[in-house]
Amino acid sequence: MTGYEITFRAEGGEDISIFAAHGENILDLARKANVAIDAPCSGNGSCGKCRVRLLEGEVYSAITRHINDYDYYNGWRLACVSKASGKAKLLVPDVASAYKSRLRVTDMSSPLEMSIFNELQDSLHGAGLKMHSGYYSAPLELEPPSLDNTMPDNERLVRAVRDVTGFSDVSIRYSLLRNLPDILRANDFKVRVMVMEDNRGGSLRILDVFPYDDSEPMCGLAIDIGTTTVSALLVDLETGRIIAKGSSGNGQIRYGADVINRIIEQQKPGGIERLRYAVIHESLLPIIHRLCDDSGVNTERIYRATVAANTTMNHLLLGVNANNIRIEPYIPAFFETEALFTRELGIDLSPGAKLSLAPNIGSYVGGDVTAGALASMMWSSPELTLLVDLGTNGELVFGNNEFLMACACSAGPAFEGGDIKCGMRATDGAIDGCVIDGETMEPGLAVIGGEAPVGLCGSGIIDVIAELFHTKIINGRGKFVREGPRIVYDEEYGGGRYIIASAEVSATGREIYIDETDIDNFIRTKGAIFSAIMTLTEPLGFSPEDISRVFVAGGIGSGINIKNAIRIGMFPELPEERFRYIGNSSLSGAYAILMSADASKKLSELAKSITYVELSTQSGYMDSFVAACFLPHTDSSLFPGLAGQS
Amino acid sequence: MTGYEITFRAEGGEDISIFAAHGENILDLARKANVAIDAPCSGNGSCGKCRVRLLEGEVYSAITRHINDYDYYNGWRLACVSKASGKAKLLVPDVASAYKSRLRVTDMSSPLEMSIFNELQDSLHGAGLKMHSGYYSAPLELEPPSLDNTMPDNERLVRAVRDVTGFSDVSIRYSLLRNLPDILRANDFKVRVMVMEDNRGGSLRILDVFPYDDSEPMCGLAIDIGTTTVSALLVDLETGRIIAKGSSGNGQIRYGADVINRIIEQQKPGGIERLRYAVIHESLLPIIHRLCDDSGVNTERIYRATVAANTTMNHLLLGVNANNIRIEPYIPAFFETEALFTRELGIDLSPGAKLSLAPNIGSYVGGDVTAGALASMMWSSPELTLLVDLGTNGELVFGNNEFLMACACSAGPAFEGGDIKCGMRATDGAIDGCVIDGETMEPGLAVIGGEAPVGLCGSGIIDVIAELFHTKIINGRGKFVREGPRIVYDEEYGGGRYIIASAEVSATGREIYIDETDIDNFIRTKGAIFSAIMTLTEPLGFSPEDISRVFVAGGIGSGINIKNAIRIGMFPELPEERFRYIGNSSLSGAYAILMSADASKKLSELAKSITYVELSTQSGYMDSFVAACFLPHTDSSLFPGLAGQS
Repeated sequence: MTGYEITFRAEGGEDISIFAAHGENILDLARKANVAIDAPCSGNGSCGKCRVRLLEGEVYSAITRHINDYDYYNGWRLACVSKASGKAKLLVPDVASAYKSRLRVTDMSSPLEMSIFNELQDSLHGAGLKMHSGYYSAPLELEPPSLDNTMPDNERLVRAVRDVTGFSDVSIRYSLLRNLPDILRANDFKVRVMVMEDNRGGSLRILDVFPYDDSEPMCGLAIDIGTTTVSALLVDLETGRIIAKGSSGNGQIRYGADVINRIIEQQKPGGIERLRYAVIHESLLPIIHRLCDDSGVNTERIYRATVAANTTMNHLLLGVNANNIRIEPYIPAFFETEALFTRELGIDLSPGAKLSLAPNIGSYVGGDVTAGALASMMWSSPELTLLVDLGTNGELVFGNNEFLMACACSAGPAFEGGDIKCGMRATDGAIDGCVIDGETMEPGLAVIGGEAPVGLCGSGIIDVIAELFHTKIINGRGKFVREGPRIVYDEEYGGGRYIIASAEVSATGREIYIDETDIDNFIRTKGAIFSAIMTLTEPLGFSPEDISRVFVAGGIGSGINIKNAIRIGMFPELPEERFRYIGNSSLSGAYAILMSADASKKLSELAKSITYVELSTQSGYMDSFVAACFLPHTDSSLFPGLAGQS
Repeated sequence: MTGYEITFRAEGGEDISIFAAHGENILDLARKANVAIDAPCSGNGSCGKCRVRLLEGEVYSAITRHINDYDYYNGWRLACVSKASGKAKLLVPDVASAYKSRLRVTDMSSPLEMSIFNELQDSLHGAGLKMHSGYYSAPLELEPPSLDNTMPDNERLVRAVRDVTGFSDVSIRYSLLRNLPDILRANDFKVRVMVMEDNRGGSLRILDVFPYDDSEPMCGLAIDIGTTTVSALLVDLETGRIIAKGSSGNGQIRYGADVINRIIEQQKPGGIERLRYAVIHESLLPIIHRLCDDSGVNTERIYRATVAANTTMNHLLLGVNANNIRIEPYIPAFFETEALFTRELGIDLSPGAKLSLAPNIGSYVGGDVTAGALASMMWSSPELTLLVDLGTNGELVFGNNEFLMACACSAGPAFEGGDIKCGMRATDGAIDGCVIDGETMEPGLAVIGGEAPVGLCGSGIIDVIAELFHTKIINGRGKFVREGPRIVYDEEYGGGRYIIASAEVSATGREIYIDETDIDNFIRTKGAIFSAIMTLTEPLGFSPEDISRVFVAGGIGSGINIKNAIRIGMFPELPEERFRYIGNSSLSGAYAILMSADASKKLSELAKSITYVELSTQSGYMDSFVAACFLPHTDSSLFPGLAGQS
């Protein structure tokens, strides 16, 4: 192939080269070469995230407000507005790969990490659900065949399993036949069988036969596929123990930060396959293999997987056209679908392993929310509860054991670092907490991993804005109104900005800041959440004070400073003790349905019982939203406790 | 790769070259190069079938009694005793490919061809079995979605199907979701759905959605996998009409003519996969594609397949180790197994298409026999019936509506042309009928296809030997006792022989003959059948005269001359009207279970009720066999009608 050689050098990684025709777009080339560059806006030049640095050679780049003269002089370009015009070598900053795909495995030996799942099991059990996965193994001694006992191998096995388990309806999966004769004979007909209860416990299925002294666990995967982040638990199906936990960026992120951009991308030729490939091969499979490698588990010992994901992610995972989700009348291909073979998705686990999806209930309220509602236990108590799931989108569920309603608010990707210039997801290097001194205006930062900061994750953004507002550096409209060494005014690049970490101390060599455009974006995000809460509760005659519990879920950081979230008017002013950060409730829900057929059934019932509210068609929602786009709110009577403070 | 270039030239075909190391076996090379050469004895030098002709270059060949000096001079060699010693070009005679894989498609527009299946449907219906496959299609108009009707696509479809069919439990296969949004919208929500009744009619499954005016049939495959021949019917599942019928040699034949040699081959490294590949990719898939091409049916319109095959063929088809079938205590891996996805076998039909196997009942009485017993209807009548299935092995079923017993006799592959030097299976060029003039000793031949003869198929062998015996050219021990121009004595090559067709008139340029070794082989074959009949009936107190009906089945030719079969003592001397040639009853049985869930259930019950008799452990069987190895029998009182004739 002729053309220019374009080389991408990953910071701290290796060089990847590709040949480009004259004029080919650099972002497209990076995608082709499978080089991860952030492009939350999917390459339309609006977000400014896809920065690359020209090390050698040349590219033709359009002028953009996202690159100032100094940076341009130093070689910085936006990949999405650059075209191949000769041989070139480009540095891809690590912030991109950190944002995209740094794979993290969590140590589950800590009792704290495990406690959330132990509690969940106890709660579900307390609500009358049988907490057993239906998967178990048993040692088995078969009578060896003889001329007087000539039963075929499969019948011999089935009868022995019947005797041991008491099940009369026992089947055996066909592919097991392939090894059965040899395994039985190599082990003198003493084996360990792995079985699964089927048909709601009415029958038993033999999944595997191993040597008698085999001791590897039967495993399952609970998976949360978020628009930004993919997380998974490797679980011992017999005991419920979590063997390992891992997470990584969703590989689809280079096709857009939010579901709308993903859907637009999947409509292009080959798009459905491209997006399916990205989430499975770049996120899910690396996590699964890492979890297995770290814990010494063979992928063939994984017998089942459950997924909690939003409606669009579910479609893209299955390779189902999601386009009708975004065009009127907004019809998904499915809410609920039968379990499917993981192998059909290119995920090779145990032969015959199936994957179940938590059911969606609307185009923008998906299985992640229903699974989260299940895990929150809000359905089992008379207390009025609000579940707020802060992900790339924001979703709410409100109700108790008598009714449940849900809605999605177009919060945008800010909670996961999208739409914020120095935003990133909550992984190593993310600033997830901030305090600003009212006098010196100097910040104190908490950084995930404890090293030099790379960017801001959701909880960090809330803190920074709340502190800027609290210290009166910005006003209620998010405009800078104080002056100081960390405050820079530059109308061309989004008005004022606050320097959170200088180029010298940041891990990337570029300054970490927040500007008025970022703050404005975030005010719209928090306004969307608050107005959604009002719109969901008010028509039923409830006021915020009636909410007994607010569960905050989502991957916005190691937690969320509730006080700050109230300060900026994202949450209603309720006593702090009514709030509880419940972590990744979608993942917890996926764990629940992995471990219990009863919980699966309950989830299916829940999904059917939740009323889906389409905010955009609710009268008053837009007014409510506009009123909430202020710090803390245009109606200060809603935040009486803050009146004296800010 | 270095080595000698060995080129195989198929008669009437193309050249295929492969590089060989010095000393590599030519038969092994042919197998590697995927060139079909007959080797019924699997290459041990005993059968003399793997003849090739050296056209150019050299090979090193051991002396063998199968190649006489004249033929050797003309370049003929046995591949199995030849080794690469230089560059060479070898002709592979067409008799091999004729024997192996000539793919035949039968015109099903003839009412005669169809009548057997129509009768079968009527008989099964008459016995109280519902003759409906459970597959059907229906046109469907869905209400298009709107803002007031936002049901997801799959639910919309399911509800419409519920309304039309009255089924409440309707499911939809997941992979259908991938195209569903586009198909619905491209056709304005007017479609044709293909559905299948499941769970014995308790639920309905949606398999496909096509445009409203689609009119292609929903198809199924009924398959008979014989050790020598593979046959298949392409069937309209809605009407039972046979769209096309095809057959071809079993590609495994180059690994041995009988099941024992196949099992020996599968024990070698890679053997299981090699044999699985041979039957699926060289026989089954070519037949399926030819059937589909000829009838304009897309393979994706095939929703189900059923297979009738012997126990070993069933194992090798599924890639299951069959070795324990041939070693004491002779334990197969399975008799019966659940339906499996055809795709798991590498057979791509409709996604989700499943294949069911007719159940085996013993190591040597397989699904071909149980399916044949079902199709024979012998289980529905009080008349004592004997079913004789003459294939590569011979199997018998005896009984009526009160009891059934079955056994296998080691008849060997003679009925399909194996173990007979000029033998071949019943395809174009096979002599399938013969009359010999008592005076001139000149033969009159019937040849399948009507062209020049290639060899002898089963029914031809019976006729030739019966006529040789009837005309007193051979005696009761099968030795030549007359002299004439067609009778040649040559002790080195198997004693006397009778020239059936000279080299000048044969299609291969080699003479077609039968010699004393062939006759001796066949006498043992027919003796095995007769003694099995005696051993099966006598212990129950029956004599041959009690048998009301004898059904003769199998692929031994377009029929069998019953009179001749009695003359040589293969069948007991019963009035000819009690015999009926019922064709390929295994294939009929496969058709029955394809078209009817009731028939499948009946077959499963039948299989469990048939008593399997192991002849080798029956006292008196060996004596009975030895006594039957004579023309017609050592005890001439068993054949009183023949006394005056021979």
